[in-house]
This record gives sequence, C-alpha cells and structure tokens, in this order.
Amino acid sequence: MNPALLSLARQLDSADELAPFRGEFHLPDPTLIYLDGNSLGRLPRGAVTLLAELVEQGWGGRLIRGWNEGWWMELQTRIGDKIARLTGASAGEIIIADSTSINLYKLAHAALRLRPGRAKIVTDDLNFPSDLYILQGICRQTGAALHIVPSADGIHGNPPALAAALDQDTALLTLSHTVFKSGYTYDMAALTGLAHAAGALTLWDLSHSAGSVPVPLNAARADLAVGCTYKYLNGGPGAPAFLYIRQDLQHAVHNPITGWIGQDAPFDFGLDYRPAPGLRRMLTGTPGILSTAAIEPGVDLLLAAGLERLRKKSLAQTDYFIQLYQAELAPRGYALNSPLDASRRGSHLSLAHPEGYGIDLALIHEMNVLPDFRPPDNIRLGIAPIYTTFTELYEAASRLAQIVDGRLYEKYRGAQVAVT
Amino acid sequence: MNPALLSLARQLDSADELAPFRGEFHLPDPTLIYLDGNSLGRLPRGAVTLLAELVEQGWGGRLIRGWNEGWWMELQTRIGDKIARLTGASAGEIIIADSTSINLYKLAHAALRLRPGRAKIVTDDLNFPSDLYILQGICRQTGAALHIVPSADGIHGNPPALAAALDQDTALLTLSHTVFKSGYTYDMAALTGLAHAAGALTLWDLSHSAGSVPVPLNAARADLAVGCTYKYLNGGPGAPAFLYIRQDLQHAVHNPITGWIGQDAPFDFGLDYRPAPGLRRMLTGTPGILSTAAIEPGVDLLLAAGLERLRKKSLAQTDYFIQLYQAELAPRGYALNSPLDASRRGSHLSLAHPEGYGIDLALIHEMNVLPDFRPPDNIRLGIAPIYTTFTELYEAASRLAQIVDGRLYEKYRGAQVAVT
Repeated sequence: MNPALLSLARQLDSADELAPFRGEFHLPDPTLIYLDGNSLGRLPRGAVTLLAELVEQGWGGRLIRGWNEGWWMELQTRIGDKIARLTGASAGEIIIADSTSINLYKLAHAALRLRPGRAKIVTDDLNFPSDLYILQGICRQTGAALHIVPSADGIHGNPPALAAALDQDTALLTLSHTVFKSGYTYDMAALTGLAHAAGALTLWDLSHSAGSVPVPLNAARADLAVGCTYKYLNGGPGAPAFLYIRQDLQHAVHNPITGWIGQDAPFDFGLDYRPAPGLRRMLTGTPGILSTAAIEPGVDLLLAAGLERLRKKSLAQTDYFIQLYQAELAPRGYALNSPLDASRRGSHLSLAHPEGYGIDLALIHEMNVLPDFRPPDNIRLGIAPIYTTFTELYEAASRLAQIVDGRLYEKYRGAQVAVT
Repeated sequence: MNPALLSLARQLDSADELAPFRGEFHLPDPTLIYLDGNSLGRLPRGAVTLLAELVEQGWGGRLIRGWNEGWWMELQTRIGDKIARLTGASAGEIIIADSTSINLYKLAHAALRLRPGRAKIVTDDLNFPSDLYILQGICRQTGAALHIVPSADGIHGNPPALAAALDQDTALLTLSHTVFKSGYTYDMAALTGLAHAAGALTLWDLSHSAGSVPVPLNAARADLAVGCTYKYLNGGPGAPAFLYIRQDLQHAVHNPITGWIGQDAPFDFGLDYRPAPGLRRMLTGTPGILSTAAIEPGVDLLLAAGLERLRKKSLAQTDYFIQLYQAELAPRGYALNSPLDASRRGSHLSLAHPEGYGIDLALIHEMNVLPDFRPPDNIRLGIAPIYTTFTELYEAASRLAQIVDGRLYEKYRGAQVAVT
C-alpha cells in the first residue's frame, strides 16, 4: 500500500468538519471498521437514552396515558416532517408507517387506481428484489403487467430503455433512486419528466438514498416514494419505514389497507371507514412506539450535520476510495461495480472479485471489517459520512489487499451466503 | 361500600397463587389502579433489561452481525410458537408480523382466494371497527360483499343470526373472539362448525382474548386468526401483531403482500417471488427487532403462570367485580354491559352510565384509576389476572361509587373522547 494514500486519509480526516459527529454514535469496539451503514446504521447515543426513558417512564410509568399525552400519536408525522427536510419534500408529505415493502404495496396499488385504464408498471432489474416481489403480487391481483427493463451492464440504470418502455398504457414508473447493488443513482427529475410526459406516475424507493444522497422530491415533481429508516437514517434494526405523497395528490390517493389509524376519527369507533384528510390516510394499524421513536435521534443528527455537507463528504470519500481501488485493488483482481461518474454515485461502492464471498467472510472474521455482500460477487462498502472516516477507508482497502495477497479467502470457499 | 366486600378482596388476594407475578412487572406508582391491561399491558421487568441489552449490545455492538447471529431472524417464529401455547395452536402455526389490521388484510384476502366463486364475508357489528374497515377495503378491491350481522343487544353475539347469514356464497366468517366493547366471548368451536358446514372458512381476531381467555384454535378447527400483542400479552405500545394459519392450510395460502422476508430464499436476491414453505410466506418486510423482541418477556410470564390458572383467576375477579356492581354500583345508576354468563365472558367488564365519559375522566384525573372508555358510554375495566389484585377491584368500585355520590363527573361534561 502506498503510504501517501494513508497520509492523505489522515489529512482529509483532520480537515473534516463533520468529524465531531462520529462521537455522537455508540462505538464500543474502536477497532471495528464498520462499512455497512447502508444496511444497518450505527446506534446514536441519543437513542440509548431515549429508549430507556420511553420504556421505563413511558410504557412503564405513563402506561395507556402515553397515547393521550401528546407525542406517541404525533411521532409518525413529526419524524416524517424531519425526513422530508432530508429528501427535498415539504412538511406533511412524509409519514412513518409499516415497512418499505408494505408502503410500496399501498402506493403502487393507489397509483394504479389513480390511472384507471392503464395497466402497465415499468421498473428495472436493478430494483431491490422485494420491490419486484411486491409489484408481482399486485399484478397478480389486479391484472396489471410488470415490465422489468434490463440494465445495460448490471451497474448503471438504462434511462433510454426505460423511456422506450413508457407508453400510453403505463400507470407507473417505479425505481430505486439509488440501486442496492452498485449504488447507481437515477436522475430523479429526468426520469420523472419522462414518466409524466407519458401520463404515468412515479414511485421512488429512497432506501439507499435517504440521509446520504440529495433527493429532490419536490423539485423533481416526484409523485410517490417509500424508503427505509434503518440504513443511512440510523433508525435501528427493522425500524418502520416512511412514505411520501406529493401534497396535491394526497386527497385523491386511496389506501388499499384501510385500518383505524388511517380513519378520519379512529376514536369514534364508527362502523364505516372514512379516510383521514392528508397523509394520515395511508396509515393502517397501531404504530409501534418503541421502534418509531428510535428513528428520531439518528435523523436529528443528520439534520444537524446538514445534507449538503454529508453529500460533499460522501463524494470525497467515494472519490478517495476509488483512488485506493485504482492504485491497490484493481491490480489485485478487484473490479469496481459502481459508477465512476460522481453525479450518478450513491454512498456505497461495490467491489467484485471472483473470490468475493470468501473475501467478505475473511474481512468479517479475520480483519474486523464489516462490509456486506450481494450475490453473485459484490462486496458492498457502505460509507456513512456522518461516522465513517477516511482512515477507515484506507484500512479497509489495505485489508482487502492483504486478503488477496495472503489468499485468506480460501478457507471460506463454498460457504452459504447469509444476511450480510 | 360494604366492608365485607373489602375483607373478601383481601382474603382472595392472600389465597391467590398467582400473586407473586405482580412483582415481575414495573410498578413505579404503587397507588395507581391500572385497569387497562386490555388496551396496553404493563411493562414486564424483564423487558427493561432485554431492551437495554438489545439496544447497546445488539444494535450498538453487534450491528449488522445481529442478523447473522441467530436470534433476530428467529424471533418472529420463536415468539409465535410461544403464543401458540397460549391459544391452543401448535408450533409452526403462529408467527409475529406487522399489525393486527395488516394481518387481517392478508388473511381475509387469502381466504377469498381459497374459496373461489364465493363472494360474501360475514361478520358482526361487535367486531373491532378497524377489522370492519379492513374488510370494507377488501370488498371494494375484490367485489366481495360484506354482511354485518347486528348483535341482539349490543352486548352479546348473535349466533343464530350469524348462522342464518352463512350460505353457499360465503367465503369467510370473521369475528372478534372476545369483543372489544362488552367482553362477550364467542364459542369458537360452535361458530367454526357452522361456518364449515356452509363451506366457509373462519378468521378470528384474538386481540382481546390472547393471554387471558382460553382460545381453542386447534380443538375448534379454526382456520385463520390474528391478534394483538400489546394488550394481555404485555408486548409494549404498538408492538407487532401475530397471525395463525392451521397447519394443513398453510401450503395453499397466498399472501397478497409478497415481500422479501416471505420469499423462499430472501438472501439470494432473485428477481422472482417464490413463497417460503409454511407460515413464513405470510411475512413481508424486514421485521422490527426492538419491538418484536420486547414481546417475549410478557409472553414468558403468562406461560409461567399458566393459562388455566390465569383464566380461573380472571373469572374469580370478574365474578367478584359483578358482586361489587350488584351491591354498590347498580344502585348508583351503573349498568353492566358485559355477559353475566361466565362461559361467554372475557377478562374485561364494561359499565355504562349516562355520565360515562365524565366518570372515566374523574377516575383518571382525581382517583388515580386508569380504565378506558369506548363510546357512547362504556367504561371498560380490564382485568389482567397476572397483575390485577382483588383489592384493586374493590378500590376501583369504591371510587366509581364516590364519583357518582360526589357528582365529580360534572366538571368533565362535554369533553372530547380521546384515546383511552
């Protein structure tokens, strides 16, 4: 490894104005290099205190009164409004609810109903599989057809092919804004413009963007979106998701899963469903208070850091890692499965290698580096600019090099791919 | 108040073999009389420790490794198997997922698909409103018709009218096993038999039964069920719900919301949905680990207490309160809106009074008693036999009497009904 690259990392860390935010996270193992904030964000210190208070004083002490004393019923909109500030949306356009997949189901269903007579949903093969599964289920139910546009190369999106697939029968274009394997990020405004020109709505999955990549929901005139809170938003394992509906569409949107929390007057206990005005109509069952509340401290840290500074640091970090890759990793057989073009790049980078999964396991078990892995051969390195340092990136690259040099992957050949 | 009734309460408490379990719950205000365990169960001490460890050591320390180190992915089935032991089901027949309303949506959809050519869903007006809203939504989507059978008197179910509504076009009979307002409990075996005789399936909402009332899912040959974990199961505010599918039906059931966690091989990231074998196919998105894990300590306490003993104490407690009612409350204008027949009685009692909501607010704000309230005039008193004492019931009745004697409800007239 070139020592100049280590000096550069140290220099970039000293100049990093976001560096103090790292201390706002729980870091019990200071030697761990955590590069999986794109899958499960680190624990904010504030969440520890908040959860302890909420459990003992809220649930334990206030008991049912917790629901009447203000904030339990407001959590979903209050945190939604904060996420709106990170995603270019307005207050009242984002709400916390259920899981990303369930939110996608609700909104894709609603989109078909908003475009009667149109029976085609367009997406691509870079979309997260769960999104495709949800869409397949909706198509089976409604008779709509799912059109999955192939990516040009498995890394980059294919806007011309998507444009060609949009036609007068298309109700919806739905894509991952930043795609999970390569980190390629779509031009939301351009794609939304194409969809609108064909009379279709757009539904964006922001799971790999929210909190690390600028998302211009309002500026792009995006119609609908969903996203996850446990990745860059640091909301905790399996934390509830969010959904977005542009203000002027909200009155016309129908939730297919019409439960009491989306009812106009849930505590009247009337026998007939009447949707709440605005976004609250997209809710269904009683919200999980512990898991919803835990989302807020991480979001607050991102707001304090500021998305512009986070994006600037994220790009500096992916640029720096690409330097490391070019100098040290490409010669050792790694290939970069992520865009070189910064404007199309998210905050994680994927490295392919013929020994990919063995390398991933060696990183985890012998090098105290945590990336994740997506078949067939992608080692994903998630950079969470709010806590990732440049020196960590240098160290990760150095260990990736050592594993190849020492053939440390050999003992892991044939292992079954698990969650990470 | 008759002092003999207080002596009786003390006597019953001394003889109560479940009394030690009260100490397993967090009781920060020893003067509070909590009669709302049918809405939000108390905090088990074990949940405090478990959540603190899970947050700091699990999320904070193990990070993404938490998913690979065994129990996060197993929580939904492991806790489901424990709830099965409280509800007369077998291992592998219950799983934790989403909310009660979303689970109802999934199973009612699946039921219509299991009975092609039949387009009628039968329920009653004692069912929880959210259940009716979900069914209304499904009917709008599928063209099925919802038949809401009226209760005879707003308190008791109406099996003959339900029987008359079941016909060759009926796909599904769905009821609250224990109804939320009056606590009336259906004879699950009898109703399931009627539905099966008509060729229909049954879907039971166990929210107000699970953990306090015997539920004979297998013995009754019940087909499908859903239920809540934050009431008598003490799972925490808005904790995820559960669903049940009888073993022999599982292979034929289709989940309408086909997400990755219900996929056969979620970590292969294949583009086509293939349902997991067994109950796991009913899952959709990433499970909320904090809120799911918090369910287990409460369920463990109920298993240790044993449902037979819990039911015995619950009936002794509702019997005792009915004595108090007859001696002291009926003369003060209260009416019992719950069944006198013990075999049809759940674990909460409803008292009607023309000044109902004012009395409810006086109990809360001046008497340190927490019941809840369901319009138009039901004060619900939830008895959670695992922590409620007989003396608390005496005290609650005494305060209900004092409020009427002192007209303490007057200052609350005209207040807006809120959550409790």
